[in-house]
Amino acid sequence: MKRWDVIISGYGTVGRQAGRLLLERQERYRKRYGADVRIVGALRSAAGSYDADGLTLDQLRAFSADAGAGRPEWTGADFLESCAYHVLIEAGPSDIQTGGHALEAMRAALGGGKHVIAISKGALVADYPGLSALARENGVQLKVSGATAAALPTVDLLAYNLAGCEISLMEGIFTGTANYVLTAMMDERLSLTQAIERAQQMGIAEPDPRFDLEGWDTACKLTILANAAFGAPLRLSDVKREGIEQLTHEQLAAWRAAGLVPKLVGRLQSAQGRVEAAVELRLLEPTHPFVHVRGTTKAVRVETDTMGELLVIGGKSDPVAAAAAALKDLEHLLQQSG
Amino acid sequence: MKRWDVIISGYGTVGRQAGRLLLERQERYRKRYGADVRIVGALRSAAGSYDADGLTLDQLRAFSADAGAGRPEWTGADFLESCAYHVLIEAGPSDIQTGGHALEAMRAALGGGKHVIAISKGALVADYPGLSALARENGVQLKVSGATAAALPTVDLLAYNLAGCEISLMEGIFTGTANYVLTAMMDERLSLTQAIERAQQMGIAEPDPRFDLEGWDTACKLTILANAAFGAPLRLSDVKREGIEQLTHEQLAAWRAAGLVPKLVGRLQSAQGRVEAAVELRLLEPTHPFVHVRGTTKAVRVETDTMGELLVIGGKSDPVAAAAAALKDLEHLLQQSG
Repeated sequence: MKRWDVIISGYGTVGRQAGRLLLERQERYRKRYGADVRIVGALRSAAGSYDADGLTLDQLRAFSADAGAGRPEWTGADFLESCAYHVLIEAGPSDIQTGGHALEAMRAALGGGKHVIAISKGALVADYPGLSALARENGVQLKVSGATAAALPTVDLLAYNLAGCEISLMEGIFTGTANYVLTAMMDERLSLTQAIERAQQMGIAEPDPRFDLEGWDTACKLTILANAAFGAPLRLSDVKREGIEQLTHEQLAAWRAAGLVPKLVGRLQSAQGRVEAAVELRLLEPTHPFVHVRGTTKAVRVETDTMGELLVIGGKSDPVAAAAAALKDLEHLLQQSG
Repeated sequence: MKRWDVIISGYGTVGRQAGRLLLERQERYRKRYGADVRIVGALRSAAGSYDADGLTLDQLRAFSADAGAGRPEWTGADFLESCAYHVLIEAGPSDIQTGGHALEAMRAALGGGKHVIAISKGALVADYPGLSALARENGVQLKVSGATAAALPTVDLLAYNLAGCEISLMEGIFTGTANYVLTAMMDERLSLTQAIERAQQMGIAEPDPRFDLEGWDTACKLTILANAAFGAPLRLSDVKREGIEQLTHEQLAAWRAAGLVPKLVGRLQSAQGRVEAAVELRLLEPTHPFVHVRGTTKAVRVETDTMGELLVIGGKSDPVAAAAAALKDLEHLLQQSG
């Protein structure tokens, strides 16, 4: 039986869920793919837990529970370059300026001929073309479901469900937090501040919600999607961007009176080999399918040449779903090698 | 460059579109997968056109245009067993009782170690378990996108976008014709007869529309989906079935007055390893997402353990889209071998 040794770096909330789910599914991987999948390492920026025979759930829990656990020599790019494994799952914090530790980890893994499954967006936003080239040169894959709307299929949808189609448009509601805030303002007439506070109490919004509300989160996802799904070397600075951080009660009342529904929509449009990306505050007629996409729910709509249009709505927005999306990517690797 | 020789059997309306699209995409297959894909044969039940170097669009057109064209020895199971190719695309008429010519063709292909891409449903309904076992024994694949709602992803959705998830429910509007007739009766207040006549004039409904209206089409798709996506050896006779062929003006008026929307919904439910299938006339509340699925549009909704729910709406229902769905399956074979 083929061994598949996995390291999870940036081991935090999502990484823990990925670890737990992976161990739950080990028996399934054996039966379905003849694959003996093990987690050999769990790494944080300062230290790591490692066992070449595979870490148990108890070992992973002990590492999670104690900030001082693990060994400092078992982490970082040097460790990832020197040690034996097949797949890196990167789930660390996003640094969209430099890519941070996550970018170093991904470069080390891809450069060493390991597959990379990215959950955090920062490294992909900072240097998708470089990482993609590194994967190609080393004959391995760079998978990004966890970083591009997670449980809502996006890259998959184009590369697999619509394989062979020309895609002229992909647009969607890609940021659950922004959609939650907008829905609360429209449906429950909360002010922007009230809606943000509620989202923060529910654990949906970050203490600093600007990344989501100013459209940066959607813009990052569009940047990755343009690269991964359209093959266009788009950068974050190429994305036109609007947010919802300036909306007033008065504006919303006027739109409500006019029967319009505001939504923060990310759009990728492809024509004559050129891909254009924009995050836009759109005022939708009540018949538009995105009008029914409420709260933290996400959605994507694509237009094709031969298969018509597809609209996909849903996919949970929580750490378990993000982890499950990354394990979907892992399963694609197992399927392809089977 | 690896040769991929394709034979299209049951060469009719959809087969012609598959042939044309495939030839249009040859250059793309070369560039993207290093695959030299050719159509070496186009077969009808009585005769076939064959060229080991690949048929041109002109040759395919000549074969389509002339009912007497082709040679009688270049078709049938014996020919498919004796000749050299890699993939059979089966697009012939559906015989859900016996499987007909399509079943013979698929058995010959799979038994000879060729991949099969099914567009017609009959053979799959008649003997999915047998065909699937034959594929496994011969190390080849049986792909069924074209037979299971075509451009609307269904098998794909479970096997790829939701890989690793437990699926408790898959339900959908799988028959465009029935949905068109129901929508016309509800929204435009047509009688059943008027709605059927309109659908026939538009080329949406067959001269004998009972297969679609009595729920057989949905039941066939559920049978194939249960086998292909859930791995359950369900037979057509296991599917509980309702249709819309008895609906009266009075019933519809009463539902309209009560604010309910009737939809013909196919449902696959999985619990404790048992899969239950039913085609049901459901009366939906106006907030149900299927209410917005009008005309020939199709939809599918799934419930998962770790990724929440997904709703997919759309995918064109015409011969080009059915052909494109089959070529998506072909592209998956190319992706896996790459």
